[in-house]
Amino acid sequence: MMEKGIFITFEGIDGCGKSTQFNRVSEYFKTLGKKFIVVREPGGTAVGEKIREILLDKKNDSMTSLAELLLYEAARAQITEEVIKPALEEGTSVLCDRFFDSTSAYQGYARGLGSELTDTLNKIATAGIKPDITFLLDLDSQTAYDRRHVRGEAEDRLEALGNSFQDKVRAGYLECAKADDRIKVIDASATPDEIFEEIKKWLCEIL
Amino acid sequence: MMEKGIFITFEGIDGCGKSTQFNRVSEYFKTLGKKFIVVREPGGTAVGEKIREILLDKKNDSMTSLAELLLYEAARAQITEEVIKPALEEGTSVLCDRFFDSTSAYQGYARGLGSELTDTLNKIATAGIKPDITFLLDLDSQTAYDRRHVRGEAEDRLEALGNSFQDKVRAGYLECAKADDRIKVIDASATPDEIFEEIKKWLCEIL
Repeated sequence: MMEKGIFITFEGIDGCGKSTQFNRVSEYFKTLGKKFIVVREPGGTAVGEKIREILLDKKNDSMTSLAELLLYEAARAQITEEVIKPALEEGTSVLCDRFFDSTSAYQGYARGLGSELTDTLNKIATAGIKPDITFLLDLDSQTAYDRRHVRGEAEDRLEALGNSFQDKVRAGYLECAKADDRIKVIDASATPDEIFEEIKKWLCEIL
Repeated sequence: MMEKGIFITFEGIDGCGKSTQFNRVSEYFKTLGKKFIVVREPGGTAVGEKIREILLDKKNDSMTSLAELLLYEAARAQITEEVIKPALEEGTSVLCDRFFDSTSAYQGYARGLGSELTDTLNKIATAGIKPDITFLLDLDSQTAYDRRHVRGEAEDRLEALGNSFQDKVRAGYLECAKADDRIKVIDASATPDEIFEEIKKWLCEIL
């Protein structure tokens, strides 16, 4: 029987340093000679990228929270069936920038749709597939905002909601971590090197 | 207390004559001086029309059945909250070209995702709102195909699946009608005038 790939996800509010660590882990996997792919959510497939455009376009400010939630789940259903599931089954590990914990934190908690609804839809969209380990890069919203600002990034539809929304998302993430020890909370105010060392420690345990 | 508007939906496979009857009922409502709006699904809102583009674009042939289902529900959530619910509450009737019975027939039955899943998602997306009456224009797939062909219509992604798929959709619709007498099955092989007379008879009962 073939060994299944490992499914690793990265979570946190925008500006938390997720992409930096995502890239470092990806480099690390290369040096280890691991078979792996990197994907991002929402998107990562032709259909998913089109859904991503709708979700992040600031012109769509009339979008209801429920429609937003269902669009994320549609993109997730597509990437899970088209990319993640086949990869894991053939022994390829998957590094994923955001997965269903984002939905729990953003739509379930911060938007107030509730965890019962997001849990139901997360389960439907992923057909029961769960990450083996999730790194939550935990950072306060002001520091995250400053980092995005320094990079001169244009705000997308969700970032434009401001720091109080990001605070709620952060609280939502911490609730998720309390409920599931698959999620490792990493202090993202540390230096990139320190953060990566902590992530590597967890990776060594699981690999 | 304000009287609520009446919610009327039109269902059937493409080419069944739905749009013709939809327009005639709309004209009829005008002559009666009724306050009403007409909407179509998927679409009918800025966000929904963008979702509609993804759904009907033949280039998106890699779309999984589950992603398709969730996209329809996202468009439905948007139009229900943004348009249908407020209209009904302020006493405006709503004529809707397709609603959740389409999902039951196309995705639940013809795609084989099952009615348990589509019922769950239909309920989530509509927050419990149901049509007061639904006209199912029932027609065999070959006659429907011939009608579309005569009109010289380009096929969309779902029509391109051919007659055997349309047969399954038709069977799915008839299953829905068996389970809920809100759905009135109309023989769509009759002339437009005959069909409209039958619809009008039902409308007189409900108005």
